[in-house]
Amino acid sequence: MVLPLVSRWSARVLWASPGWRRTYTQRACVGLKRLGCPRGVYSPLAHRAYSVVAGGPEVTLTPERYPVQRLPFSTVSEEDLAAFECIIPGRVITDPEQLQTCNVDWLKTVRGCSKVLLRPQTSEEVSQILRHCYKRNLAVNPQGGNTGMVGGSVPVFDEVILSTALMNQVISFHDVSGILVCQAGCVLEELSRYVQERDFIMPLDLGAKGSCHIGGNVATNAGGLRFLRYGSLRGTVLGLEVVLADGTILNCLTSLRKDNTGYDLKQMFIGSEGTLGVITAVSIVCPPRPKAVNVAFLGCPGFAEVLQTFRTCRGMLGEILSAFEFMDTECMQLVGQHLQLTNPVQESPFYVLVETSGSSAGHDAEKLTNVLEQVLNSGLVTDGTMATDQRKVQMLWALRERITEALSRDGYVFKYDLSLPVERLYDLVIDLRTRLGPRAKHVVGYGHLGDGNLHLNVTAEAFSRELLGALEPYVYAWTAEQRGSVSAEHGLGFKKKDVLGYSKPPVAVTLMQQLKAMLDPEGILNPYKTLPAQA
Amino acid sequence: MVLPLVSRWSARVLWASPGWRRTYTQRACVGLKRLGCPRGVYSPLAHRAYSVVAGGPEVTLTPERYPVQRLPFSTVSEEDLAAFECIIPGRVITDPEQLQTCNVDWLKTVRGCSKVLLRPQTSEEVSQILRHCYKRNLAVNPQGGNTGMVGGSVPVFDEVILSTALMNQVISFHDVSGILVCQAGCVLEELSRYVQERDFIMPLDLGAKGSCHIGGNVATNAGGLRFLRYGSLRGTVLGLEVVLADGTILNCLTSLRKDNTGYDLKQMFIGSEGTLGVITAVSIVCPPRPKAVNVAFLGCPGFAEVLQTFRTCRGMLGEILSAFEFMDTECMQLVGQHLQLTNPVQESPFYVLVETSGSSAGHDAEKLTNVLEQVLNSGLVTDGTMATDQRKVQMLWALRERITEALSRDGYVFKYDLSLPVERLYDLVIDLRTRLGPRAKHVVGYGHLGDGNLHLNVTAEAFSRELLGALEPYVYAWTAEQRGSVSAEHGLGFKKKDVLGYSKPPVAVTLMQQLKAMLDPEGILNPYKTLPAQA
Ligand SMILES: Cc1cc2nc3c(=O)[nH]c(=O)nc-3n(C[C@H](O)[C@H](O)[C@H](O)COP(=O)(O)OP(=O)(O)OC[C@H]3O[C@@H](n4cnc5c(N)ncnc54)[C@H](O)[C@@H]3O)c2cc1C
Ligand SMILES: Cc1cc2nc3c(=O)[nH]c(=O)nc-3n(C[C@H](O)[C@H](O)[C@H](O)COP(=O)(O)OP(=O)(O)OC[C@H]3O[C@@H](n4cnc5c(N)ncnc54)[C@H](O)[C@@H]3O)c2cc1C
Repeated sequence: MVLPLVSRWSARVLWASPGWRRTYTQRACVGLKRLGCPRGVYSPLAHRAYSVVAGGPEVTLTPERYPVQRLPFSTVSEEDLAAFECIIPGRVITDPEQLQTCNVDWLKTVRGCSKVLLRPQTSEEVSQILRHCYKRNLAVNPQGGNTGMVGGSVPVFDEVILSTALMNQVISFHDVSGILVCQAGCVLEELSRYVQERDFIMPLDLGAKGSCHIGGNVATNAGGLRFLRYGSLRGTVLGLEVVLADGTILNCLTSLRKDNTGYDLKQMFIGSEGTLGVITAVSIVCPPRPKAVNVAFLGCPGFAEVLQTFRTCRGMLGEILSAFEFMDTECMQLVGQHLQLTNPVQESPFYVLVETSGSSAGHDAEKLTNVLEQVLNSGLVTDGTMATDQRKVQMLWALRERITEALSRDGYVFKYDLSLPVERLYDLVIDLRTRLGPRAKHVVGYGHLGDGNLHLNVTAEAFSRELLGALEPYVYAWTAEQRGSVSAEHGLGFKKKDVLGYSKPPVAVTLMQQLKAMLDPEGILNPYKTLPAQA
Repeated sequence: MVLPLVSRWSARVLWASPGWRRTYTQRACVGLKRLGCPRGVYSPLAHRAYSVVAGGPEVTLTPERYPVQRLPFSTVSEEDLAAFECIIPGRVITDPEQLQTCNVDWLKTVRGCSKVLLRPQTSEEVSQILRHCYKRNLAVNPQGGNTGMVGGSVPVFDEVILSTALMNQVISFHDVSGILVCQAGCVLEELSRYVQERDFIMPLDLGAKGSCHIGGNVATNAGGLRFLRYGSLRGTVLGLEVVLADGTILNCLTSLRKDNTGYDLKQMFIGSEGTLGVITAVSIVCPPRPKAVNVAFLGCPGFAEVLQTFRTCRGMLGEILSAFEFMDTECMQLVGQHLQLTNPVQESPFYVLVETSGSSAGHDAEKLTNVLEQVLNSGLVTDGTMATDQRKVQMLWALRERITEALSRDGYVFKYDLSLPVERLYDLVIDLRTRLGPRAKHVVGYGHLGDGNLHLNVTAEAFSRELLGALEPYVYAWTAEQRGSVSAEHGLGFKKKDVLGYSKPPVAVTLMQQLKAMLDPEGILNPYKTLPAQA
């Protein structure tokens, strides 16, 4: 049972559906040999078996919805297939049914028509594949767990899909320093489990953990739920191995916390969304597993109170504050309606989830109790509940983590992932509700408040050009006016590549294009993604 | 007085010279207008007035000691000087005496013969200067506080010195988020004071704080004393403004914690040591000022005990551990001999400095006391002392921070800054003592143990080619064998540029050269630095 903290708090029983798990996806048992699963038993595409993808109406082909022209790449020929088969025998997939899931993104908003999926196991194989594609001028779409939010993870036309799903080996783990070196296709949740057994945790965590790959996380510079405490992958990733467009293997897979020998090349690939190279292995430093974790789930009467609660937490919890997430009442309704999760506290306009992670259960509980007393007594919080044991902690987290899933069940989702000055974070949501009126089914706001990161989502029965027109460029212009970012953590992928200019000046865009030309002169890696098409 | 923690600890009076300050340099009062000092009163080069530089024998000209050829850049003409005078009237320095200090590095190991020092105040001025130099093919040496350790901060021949000393304005500070935006020439210690008054701290700290500039810190990707807790500048620097070789201003000066719009260009400039662009402004996130800081200074009987003490601290102090530094007994002798600092504890083979920073004085003291009891009782530590008030904390820190200064007073210093597996960190010091015998005056080891970072220093009466031959490439090969880094935090600059290959594979070096060619096609920015000369 979730422990009510003080008597006036809600003591209702929390969970309607008792058997659910923290990770919503039907997580596949991916063949992490050293993580204890024998490889033979997995069906090749099990890791993509989301219920939200399977079934439902066919997703519109990307070029039918978006104005995009195929670039003059070659088309995969029988000879190409034979060459691939030589490099990775038995792992060249051309079966249309198996290809279907890899051609469609998690949100079911874009669809490519690739005819071939390649499943290498080693960097050497990736290198040989790219060498071949480079020579043959074949476009390539690197794919991890395919949980990306911006249409970057699937082909736009017939690009070869290069999946890291079978590159799922832990290479080494140092149990004093906590430095993990692994292949790019390791599933984040598997890695989490692996390092937790050794008394460490992964420095990042996100709702997609059951499916996303560490390589995909690095390629998107994923933020997620622990960013507030453990910072960006730019600090925690120590090394990368990357295969360049022409097949050259760039080995920067060092396991050193500090290394200032020359330019830090790995940084170019972090967040480059598969457009500059294919990440094949990652070295990452894991923080020690905290001895005590507490989660409080609180109801706030207004957004001003959410902000004030954050300030109070930051001031009083200091170094043990490990997450501060918020969601509005519409989010709560959606997780209730679509996923049958029950609100553990009184209905409120806003909810926040506060997590502490520390090295002394007693000290942490004392700090958190002081905070909770203060926010309750001052009226910043009207109701709340707290959990310390792992199962209950996960239950509370699910309310926040499964919002993305609930939204995707609500209809077509227009997704915006913005960095904004924290004081103005919620204004845009209110503004849009008025602007869109009944044209939108739901306009919701939630996200990583502690990082100034708003997930603004608008759902509708179906994709609608008119609704899109009401949203864009309005949302981007609004954000730019606040000097915010039009993509805080999801990247630009296919769907946001043309809005780069709202957050970056022309000089920067030109430099990015030069960098792309330097590393991928033929432009075969994830074309139509990240950078606006050149004039 | 420094409080003895438990009765068996040393209670001797600590400090021979009562009047000393934490920062050893004769720190200049640099004209940070908004930081409270009127600009008019400073002599132009006051910030370089180190006693260790002034006086003493003339430093050998770099090309006389090192095999390096001047590249075919133009020579500064009267017309160039007139053009500079037009851009920055009154701030073009050609007086040989004033130029002397800017031509010699802090360690007095390299000397250039530049005839002109430029002191712009704005990015626009930097842009105009570089536009002129680019057109005229004049080589440029960006210079911050000139505290660099690898000869990167001074000209090798007659490069134009472009100093950020007058670019010392705070642009903005947000007192909720702690995000500071400032010009590149702000002195780290001034910034520290500025943000501390607002209840934040800088995420980095180093012994050179009284002189080094934030731009120089970013240009060298400085690590320093808070790296263990607050991580790398790659995570804490949020934005940069950079002037490119041709004078183009690249404005990536965002103040957002998260921004995944396109490639993160600022990363290319962090740690690029002035070879890819001139950093003119920095946006950096400052952590809240901890409410309680404790420092313990401990004596350990051996290096194995140092390591075990570290593990104990990490395990028991967890999130409040903010520094773990070590030094050997020779270091202590040198700070005693050259700086008259007194050892606060019993003489020991090794000393460690443990710092905690947290949000509850009571909780932190309790945690630290538990640790200290444990390490004393188990014999890992034989003597120690602890401090909580700021003055005493600074006194203990000085023992560690002033080692660099003590070494520079001991004679010519051969400096190595290595990342090594922590278990083998001290082996190389022992090995070298045997190898060098009486040829070396002192062979000492100290550094950021918590980050696996050893500062290995060898002193001699004077520079000696023979001693150099005994040290190099031996030290680099030894490090490479351990898969370490031949420059953990100091960068490569002029003196280490040719050893890049010990830590990076040829593919990486080639890519770095391409990056340099892309951003600085004429190679005018800090030539002869960071990258090995191309064949
Ligand atoms: C429920 C849910 C919650 C989420 N929560 C968060 C969150 O909190 N924070 C956040 O930042 N993101 C979040 N995301 C989106 C996030 O981008 C992804 O979940 C994750 O980082 C992508 O990993 P992936 O392996 O699925 O990559 P994919 O989706 O397969 O690919 C993403 C991009 O990276 C490229 N890529 C993938 N692997 C490689 C590789 N090895 N080398 C080069 N390029 C590669 C692809 O080409 C594509 O452009 C969430 C997504 C979902 C579905
Ligand atoms: C006593 C002492 C202690 C030190 N401790 C540490 C430590 O703990 N950790 C650590 O990492 N380092 C340490 N250092 C070395 C460290 O590199 C410097 O102190 C500091 O980061 C350099 O800053 P600076 O402003 O003095 O730069 P400079 O020495 O002036 O320049 C260093 C390099 O950066 C370039 N540069 C400077 N400013 C700019 C700019 N605005 N744009 C582009 N390029 C620029 C220069 O061309 C040069 O290549 C120490 C040095 C001393 C003397």
